[in-house]
Amino acid sequence: MNKKQALQQCALNIFSEKGYLNTPIRDIIDASGFGTSTFYRNFKNKEDVLKSLLETLFQEIFSSIKVYYDNEADLYIRFIETKRLILDVFIKNKKLAEIYSRSAGISPEIDACIKAFDDQFLMLSQKNIEYGINKGLFKTIDSYAIACSILSIIKYMVYRWTVLDDVTEKSMVETVLSFHESLAKGITT
Amino acid sequence: MNKKQALQQCALNIFSEKGYLNTPIRDIIDASGFGTSTFYRNFKNKEDVLKSLLETLFQEIFSSIKVYYDNEADLYIRFIETKRLILDVFIKNKKLAEIYSRSAGISPEIDACIKAFDDQFLMLSQKNIEYGINKGLFKTIDSYAIACSILSIIKYMVYRWTVLDDVTEKSMVETVLSFHESLAKGITT
Repeated sequence: MNKKQALQQCALNIFSEKGYLNTPIRDIIDASGFGTSTFYRNFKNKEDVLKSLLETLFQEIFSSIKVYYDNEADLYIRFIETKRLILDVFIKNKKLAEIYSRSAGISPEIDACIKAFDDQFLMLSQKNIEYGINKGLFKTIDSYAIACSILSIIKYMVYRWTVLDDVTEKSMVETVLSFHESLAKGITT
Repeated sequence: MNKKQALQQCALNIFSEKGYLNTPIRDIIDASGFGTSTFYRNFKNKEDVLKSLLETLFQEIFSSIKVYYDNEADLYIRFIETKRLILDVFIKNKKLAEIYSRSAGISPEIDACIKAFDDQFLMLSQKNIEYGINKGLFKTIDSYAIACSILSIIKYMVYRWTVLDDVTEKSMVETVLSFHESLAKGITT
């Protein structure tokens, strides 16, 4: 782990414990054992740390999907099972998942970072749905609306699991997959 | 408008302009023209004002659904059109809709307030879906998963419309309704 990653790890733990808004940069620096200048060589400010943490999460999500796509050609199985993979990334990173669920609206820069992920996710989903339409698996449907519903139920169930803490990991995964199965009945030919 | 409502209106305008977190109570009191004691006779603190604003929005949503249910008996039309009504309430209250979209994770009390709405909405949706299953309109489906997908796409599209500002009102409504039509094909008998 390099110094940047060590600072990210300290920030993750403190954000998770005290909340992003209640964490002074000083606490992150003190927990890391590095000097102030090391912090500022790696990050512009606290927001920049949060942004880098979120980007780590987003990259892990996209790379897990990519690896899976390279190994699974069945479009229907892909439609359902990619969602399990995405949720597994959140489960593996629960602290970060909670911070993600609490980040919307924190600042314009964080909003832009989350929006970039959302947009890339929606684009990828839409592309796959349209591919499914071309291959005859899906009816001619509004791919944007379906992509939005997929992204939104994932975000919402992660929020209920981390922030509201009223669903278990298992029930979160089952709810998202069960929704996809019902939806698939409506959109497959 | 009584003094409480006048204070709510001032708070709504200032939260909307400067953000909830950046608004000192002093600004709300000054904008209202009332004294400090009037504020504290009506609200415990700033959080209490936000909570009361959110509750106003939630009540308007539930009462618009109730009035509609009293006048529309067709279950399929209800399934689609209640979502237009809910979005109309958000559209009529755009400033409040944006504050709502930015409120998740602000504090445990606000989280609890949003959760109470979500839970009531999920319960109502589930009850209606189960009624539809009993009446033979819907297949035997996971009503919780479907209710979660409905709530989550509404929340997400309101967020894209208010915070991200990248969909129009019209496109927000069309996306939510189009999703419901695709979903309905999967879950109706």
